[in-house]
Amino acid sequence: MSGSPPDPKALMSEEDIIRLVQSLAGESKDELWVGIGDDAAVLNLGGRGFCVTTDLLVEGVHFDLSYTGPHDLGWKAMAANLSDLAAMGARPRWGLFSLGLPPRPPRRLVESILGGVMEMCRRHNLTLVGGDTVRSPQIVINLCLIGAVETKSPALRSGARPGDAVCVSGPLGSSAAGLAWLKSGGAADDGQAAWAVAAHLRPEPRVAAGRALAQSERVHAMMDLSDGLASDLARLCAASQVGARVEESLLPLAPQAAGLAAQLKADPIQWALTGGEDFELLVTCAPGNVELLAELAADSQKGVSLRRVGEITRGRGVVLARADGSEEEITLQGFDHFREEKSP
Amino acid sequence: MSGSPPDPKALMSEEDIIRLVQSLAGESKDELWVGIGDDAAVLNLGGRGFCVTTDLLVEGVHFDLSYTGPHDLGWKAMAANLSDLAAMGARPRWGLFSLGLPPRPPRRLVESILGGVMEMCRRHNLTLVGGDTVRSPQIVINLCLIGAVETKSPALRSGARPGDAVCVSGPLGSSAAGLAWLKSGGAADDGQAAWAVAAHLRPEPRVAAGRALAQSERVHAMMDLSDGLASDLARLCAASQVGARVEESLLPLAPQAAGLAAQLKADPIQWALTGGEDFELLVTCAPGNVELLAELAADSQKGVSLRRVGEITRGRGVVLARADGSEEEITLQGFDHFREEKSP
Repeated sequence: MSGSPPDPKALMSEEDIIRLVQSLAGESKDELWVGIGDDAAVLNLGGRGFCVTTDLLVEGVHFDLSYTGPHDLGWKAMAANLSDLAAMGARPRWGLFSLGLPPRPPRRLVESILGGVMEMCRRHNLTLVGGDTVRSPQIVINLCLIGAVETKSPALRSGARPGDAVCVSGPLGSSAAGLAWLKSGGAADDGQAAWAVAAHLRPEPRVAAGRALAQSERVHAMMDLSDGLASDLARLCAASQVGARVEESLLPLAPQAAGLAAQLKADPIQWALTGGEDFELLVTCAPGNVELLAELAADSQKGVSLRRVGEITRGRGVVLARADGSEEEITLQGFDHFREEKSP
Repeated sequence: MSGSPPDPKALMSEEDIIRLVQSLAGESKDELWVGIGDDAAVLNLGGRGFCVTTDLLVEGVHFDLSYTGPHDLGWKAMAANLSDLAAMGARPRWGLFSLGLPPRPPRRLVESILGGVMEMCRRHNLTLVGGDTVRSPQIVINLCLIGAVETKSPALRSGARPGDAVCVSGPLGSSAAGLAWLKSGGAADDGQAAWAVAAHLRPEPRVAAGRALAQSERVHAMMDLSDGLASDLARLCAASQVGARVEESLLPLAPQAAGLAAQLKADPIQWALTGGEDFELLVTCAPGNVELLAELAADSQKGVSLRRVGEITRGRGVVLARADGSEEEITLQGFDHFREEKSP
């Protein structure tokens, strides 16, 4: 660290803590191809690359059982981790599942959470090989997934180059729209919001698309959108030492997003930029390859539609070009896990 | 499942949940050498065996910061997981560390927890390769460790044979004694209890001893003692489809245990049988090999002293032969993670 020593009593943000862990942890070398800082670490085991990723979910912080059923919870915890493997272009293989539960939990609750986890295991050919079960005041879930890298090198956050097209693999903000709908008291099965509720409760990680894109060897940088385009693109830019310019008019929204946003007095562009949990892929590539990659991605996985939303620039930071011609910096407006409340 | 279908509203114990996960999860085959149910799963990656293990620790359930300092907490979380690798005879390699913390945690707290984790990483040549940092009402830690198997096959719980000697790698109940001392209001640095407090706060996982024992190829079954001899030996016996007989007079206690127990009005044999968190190794072998294995273990790691405490029998269940000549069944008196309170 440079400058004056940090104040030991100072309060830390999530980014502070990630930087501290990175400064203490292992560097990429020998049998560790990629260390902390990407969507997953990559280990070299006997010449083959394996991605490992982990996510911790806490009741009341990451989910609320009044909006998320226990089966959805198991599904979504798996989706978040599978999305990290997707972003590396890796094939899901094994999982370890830790579950904290209040004392003497009802069988129905446990079976439903596990049912959601196992449904995703079956869909993605992933084998559960271990775990831990403990008592906890809230429900706590930790997943650790291992995937096989099938390409010479995995797709990283750090490969973006000035002039690259910035693309996303599907509509943005649908999960945030679904959460806003549920929080407003809307029914989960209401016809007008079913698309958004489904996106929020049962996101489809872009595993097949991620593998196809990585295998094309035409992707420069890739990561998954878990915290929102604004903060995730800022992280990709920081890792690649570049900037980005996103065009509001190009942001893909679900067709019904504007109507639902008007009803909820919300801004669908804000949902798209900062909502998080879309679990779409964020990809950069040479502008001439967008069409080819969009075809590959669409062929590999139903529902995937890769579209350009902007470009990588020589500068730093992420700029949003508004439809009215104005520009504003949108870096790091996403989800800070240590804020008291998630932004709406 | 046999018999009538389980009641979906029934309340589940930890053993119920483990059985449910096992019934849903992957069986050992192809690239999965050992699935759920041992100290760690063993994956076959390109012909080499790798162990993976995970543990979830929740503040107020597994630790209390009024007894356990944050550096000790990081240390102990690592020790618990390293102990699982030790029980497989594996060499520690990589770790993923998830940390849940209250909003805006003080830097000193975060640095101390991480300091304990990193100290154990350095001591055991383990590289931290990933993790997750989230907000949580309590401190929550999940570790996932990967180790390399260096033997033809790892030491499992299921290999015990009738007639085997049952051995443990060091004194039992010291951790429970330390916890009892701290809970009674005793100072952590009081001379008469320092040995017990150290055993409770900074357990030394038997990593080198576990590797040496596994490499001897004379160990029939091995696991680590995390929940207490009574319940852990019952698990080993169930996995091996055998019983065991433990002799009270052979249970190794720390030299000062009797004195401290008298002062705290506690039973040191109870500490040894059900205290948990000793992180010693539980080993079975042919009776004629005890001396050789004890030498190997002592040479491999300071503080390790392998001693016979009983034998494997043809029956089922674990019987304690009391010093007064009576016998009692002690199966499953250990730590049920779903009980409200840990037994004293």
